[in-house]
Amino acid sequence: MSRYRIAVRITPRRGILDPQGQTVAEALHTLGFASVRDVHVGRHIVVELDAPDRPNAEQSTREMCERLLANPVTEDFEIAHVEAT
Amino acid sequence: MSRYRIAVRITPRRGILDPQGQTVAEALHTLGFASVRDVHVGRHIVVELDAPDRPNAEQSTREMCERLLANPVTEDFEIAHVEAT
Repeated sequence: MSRYRIAVRITPRRGILDPQGQTVAEALHTLGFASVRDVHVGRHIVVELDAPDRPNAEQSTREMCERLLANPVTEDFEIAHVEAT
Repeated sequence: MSRYRIAVRITPRRGILDPQGQTVAEALHTLGFASVRDVHVGRHIVVELDAPDRPNAEQSTREMCERLLANPVTEDFEIAHVEAT
């Protein structure tokens, strides 16, 4: 068993309303950042786990995304980075 | 003026309690992912903005992080990706 640190990026699916992003864009305008055109807010999740090898660690992480971390209706996820620690 | 798409990663500062990460780790254990050792939850924010050039776009984004997007007491931010669109 080795320990892996895996970073996952979860983003609102394109074309789906992103109310949090809209709110942040409006707040930035209010603060004077008039050049802001659009904002999207997603999550950056780092999971540390034990696994026999890297493919196994990635596969477990994908299952975690499908079962808990990402909303399958409104969000996309991708594994951004894998590192053995 | 050009349009830039800038991705920012905002993460809980190391050593600071991350209750959201702990909750997610416990939920993953409950679901049977017993090999999970630690979870950290941060944000992945994509800002689209108009700027005269890339350094200017990055500088504006850093100011947005300092003034609104990141909590200066508990979070760190870094610019993960810059792309002219």
